[in-house]
Amino acid sequence: MSEKMERIRHSASHVMAEAVQALFPEAKFGIGPVIENGFYYDFDLPRPLTPEDLPVIEARMAELIAQDLPFTREEVERDEARRIFAHQPYKLEFIDEIPEERMTIYRQGSFVDLCRGPHVSSTGEIKAFKLLNIAGAYWRGDEKRPMLQRIYGVAFEAQEKLERYLEKLAEAAKRDHRKLGQELDLFSFHEEAGPGLVHWHPRGATVRRIIEDFWIAEHLKRGYEIVYSPHIAKLDLWKMSGHWELYREHLYSPMDVEGQEYLIKPMNCPAHILMYKTKLRSYRELPIRWAELGTVYRYERSGVLHGLTRVRGFTQDDAHIFCRPDQLEDEVVGVMEFAIFMMRTFGFQEYEVLLSTRPERYAGTVEIWEEATETLKRALKRLALPYRVDPGEGVFYGPKIDIRLRDALGRAWQGPTTQVDFNLPERFDVTYIDIDGVAHPVVIVHRTVLGSMERFFACLIEHYAGAFPIWLAPVQAVVIPISDRHLDYAHQVAVELKAEGMRAQADARPERMNLKIRQAQLQKIPYMLIVGDKEVASAVVSVRLRNGEDLGRQNLETFKEIAKAAITQKTS
Amino acid sequence: MSEKMERIRHSASHVMAEAVQALFPEAKFGIGPVIENGFYYDFDLPRPLTPEDLPVIEARMAELIAQDLPFTREEVERDEARRIFAHQPYKLEFIDEIPEERMTIYRQGSFVDLCRGPHVSSTGEIKAFKLLNIAGAYWRGDEKRPMLQRIYGVAFEAQEKLERYLEKLAEAAKRDHRKLGQELDLFSFHEEAGPGLVHWHPRGATVRRIIEDFWIAEHLKRGYEIVYSPHIAKLDLWKMSGHWELYREHLYSPMDVEGQEYLIKPMNCPAHILMYKTKLRSYRELPIRWAELGTVYRYERSGVLHGLTRVRGFTQDDAHIFCRPDQLEDEVVGVMEFAIFMMRTFGFQEYEVLLSTRPERYAGTVEIWEEATETLKRALKRLALPYRVDPGEGVFYGPKIDIRLRDALGRAWQGPTTQVDFNLPERFDVTYIDIDGVAHPVVIVHRTVLGSMERFFACLIEHYAGAFPIWLAPVQAVVIPISDRHLDYAHQVAVELKAEGMRAQADARPERMNLKIRQAQLQKIPYMLIVGDKEVASAVVSVRLRNGEDLGRQNLETFKEIAKAAITQKTS
Repeated sequence: MSEKMERIRHSASHVMAEAVQALFPEAKFGIGPVIENGFYYDFDLPRPLTPEDLPVIEARMAELIAQDLPFTREEVERDEARRIFAHQPYKLEFIDEIPEERMTIYRQGSFVDLCRGPHVSSTGEIKAFKLLNIAGAYWRGDEKRPMLQRIYGVAFEAQEKLERYLEKLAEAAKRDHRKLGQELDLFSFHEEAGPGLVHWHPRGATVRRIIEDFWIAEHLKRGYEIVYSPHIAKLDLWKMSGHWELYREHLYSPMDVEGQEYLIKPMNCPAHILMYKTKLRSYRELPIRWAELGTVYRYERSGVLHGLTRVRGFTQDDAHIFCRPDQLEDEVVGVMEFAIFMMRTFGFQEYEVLLSTRPERYAGTVEIWEEATETLKRALKRLALPYRVDPGEGVFYGPKIDIRLRDALGRAWQGPTTQVDFNLPERFDVTYIDIDGVAHPVVIVHRTVLGSMERFFACLIEHYAGAFPIWLAPVQAVVIPISDRHLDYAHQVAVELKAEGMRAQADARPERMNLKIRQAQLQKIPYMLIVGDKEVASAVVSVRLRNGEDLGRQNLETFKEIAKAAITQKTS
Repeated sequence: MSEKMERIRHSASHVMAEAVQALFPEAKFGIGPVIENGFYYDFDLPRPLTPEDLPVIEARMAELIAQDLPFTREEVERDEARRIFAHQPYKLEFIDEIPEERMTIYRQGSFVDLCRGPHVSSTGEIKAFKLLNIAGAYWRGDEKRPMLQRIYGVAFEAQEKLERYLEKLAEAAKRDHRKLGQELDLFSFHEEAGPGLVHWHPRGATVRRIIEDFWIAEHLKRGYEIVYSPHIAKLDLWKMSGHWELYREHLYSPMDVEGQEYLIKPMNCPAHILMYKTKLRSYRELPIRWAELGTVYRYERSGVLHGLTRVRGFTQDDAHIFCRPDQLEDEVVGVMEFAIFMMRTFGFQEYEVLLSTRPERYAGTVEIWEEATETLKRALKRLALPYRVDPGEGVFYGPKIDIRLRDALGRAWQGPTTQVDFNLPERFDVTYIDIDGVAHPVVIVHRTVLGSMERFFACLIEHYAGAFPIWLAPVQAVVIPISDRHLDYAHQVAVELKAEGMRAQADARPERMNLKIRQAQLQKIPYMLIVGDKEVASAVVSVRLRNGEDLGRQNLETFKEIAKAAITQKTS
């Protein structure tokens, strides 16, 4: 954000505060900072705000802006500040905490605030703003302090930019996977079962299953093998792996089994390591690539849970590669090519690549880190992949490469990750017998090529606004009879399509055709096949697409070819 | 077991005790009952027994049998019994617990036992016996009491029957899935992770994945939909379902999440019910059939865990059918046909069907039980399936039909189950809107068509002695070059087979051909394709089967056709 925009947005927050003060003279003020695209201010008010209050506050703000009131800066002593804010307990709290005796205040119109600034010179410089919504916020984020009311707003340099932003917001709201998840009957959460625990309904599960089948097939092609491991393990295993010490805040509490403590798994790695260690492994066997669609459970505060993107249980499309140090570069190249192939297949053309290097706290030696980091760089160079270095952002056990996807609205999503691990091979003494007959530590690579099924599904839903590519669509074609006498033919067409492996159904409900078409469109079903007298007579179907496009009458065989080609080619 | 065989086996246990007494005069005796095919006796001895002791005890027993010593029965008063067993503390414990003042003792040779009998008239009637193994056993099964040493033996009417039994035992030992699981590298258990938790290695996971893929495809054909649900849920949900109250001894201890108790799931049903209840369901939508390969966790004492058949976590091939009462019969018929189709596909031709009826403690009314039981009977009649009624063996929530498979050795395995549930629809208020516009309770059917992935896999391993039908074999074909100069062709053949979707590999290790063939046979790989100069020259392969049969030289295309037909037809 430019320094100018920062001043505009910060000033807008003061103007909003002045407007609120005009409407509620007894208002107490918290803080009013700048955030991405806008600002907020926290208020302690005599009554709860409602969405209807926002236009009133906006109108008052518009008046204050029209008056083009100047912002003035003053320096005052602590005692003077205390007098000015005598009736503002939240401000007084800050005044007492400021180490310097002199502090700055800003005034505009009838409003004064304790504030470092800077601000615009007068309110008239605020050209385009909009208040968005109201939320509760604990004073200083502390749930033991009073709950204040926060108003969020946005501000831009020009009305046009504001409008573009609001349109994007509206589009994002329409695509919100939580909303579409319900409308398209994809998944649900249940307070009775616990927040953050995804229940995949048949339609969502169909998409997941197709992704998983594709994922498995592509892994087998690339020399991976699939394994399954249990969802619980003794706590001691997680102590040995270091997770209990280092990830404790994300672990569930242990459960007791015959006096032994067990933990629901936050990771699949220790199980794969135990399997690796069931025999001596020769250098000739490596690399071993084991993949698992492993559902893991990690604690997140209920306050941060969000749809499918922040959950308490999720299925990692996980794999562990056990390799020799001399194989690492090739393996990383293979993983990155695989990940990018997956992204492209699912319709993501834009992404950023980030290389995260050694953090302050790390396992292994500086030498081993540098060697591995250089290996990752060499792999990225071989792939001619532009990337950004995120210094010190590696996990403690090794450097990593993350891919961030950009969706149709240009928003970034956390995607695949590739992480080198120096920690687990040492902790679990994971070795291979080299040509010299001696045991050497293996290198372990943790990687995903989607991220997690849940987060990736959320991203897919929002990227496609629920209109999944045909190969992923839970229902690919619905046959809609014009009247009851076309029902038999409708069923027959559905049966024929199913016999070709398509997910097709006849809509036999006693409803009007137009309603069925409308509902099929809302359900984002790729093909609607309308059948009436003419279609029955000549064994054709009238094909309508979900975007409203009309492909006209098609021979059933021709339609099958069109649809099957779209499915095979995985077109959007 | 006949009354006669019972007497013989019980007498053999006394003879064994006499033999042990002769070897260890200070021996203290526990109990020596009859069990299936044989007997055991628990001893408190001055030193641990070793397998080498068994032939010595057997030899002594043979002498005692050759002497044809008579068994004599006496009735004695409690005080007299106390005198006789003055040095036998375990017997004294029993003597004090017998309510009657008079009790019986049996003598043969120098041995006397507190015993109700009956016995054979003399030891010579024991014609054929064998001691099998030694195990530890707590006195009276109480881990706070002393650990005794138990010797297991078997006895039959004739030597020939004993030999047949021992052959079957040896065959069963060869087929033991725990042994084959390790030899064929199918799965492992790890003390570090916890007993009873299966880790599926790539080869075992391959078989499981093929079974699962087939299972899913067959479900979709039959109008089921696939769902996924989380592995944990709030304890309150399990209180509501009744599991906490009724299955508590099989549940893990709760874990704490933000002050709420959560349980790892022992069943999938509550999650499916929550999903069902996300909307009003019309009578026209029913039946709804939701299937899930749901991994559940149930507590079993570590002492009873056994390979894949008794575990602490297992994947149910679960489904719940939500239907109207008038649909129940058709649904049960459909499920039974499906289950039998599955059994036959996997090579089980023999099975028993058991109908379990109302137990003493039950949910619902007698009328509703009788109606449902009659419905199940009508379904079985329509299928012309012979069945046995197991009176009072239904689960508390409804009657059920179990299928017990017979494996290649004639042993019974617990297979698919179909259970009607009157309890959950009521507890969760699960309804549908009928044509009358009013909500009515649905009927829920719980069912599996395999049982569980783990138990079914154990059964498959033992049924086929690890030589899986070709469609299930983890590796279907291995290409073995006669020498290094045939390696390229071997790789080329493997690549061609893989391109056809076969699981094929070239054995490129620097080992001798004969060793490779031997190892492939031990790995029970269906096809070994040997390639040497002649094969390279004329693009053929020499085909050898795992049973040693030689199919001679085959054109590669011909071999592909043979193998693909065997895979498609799912032949054994």
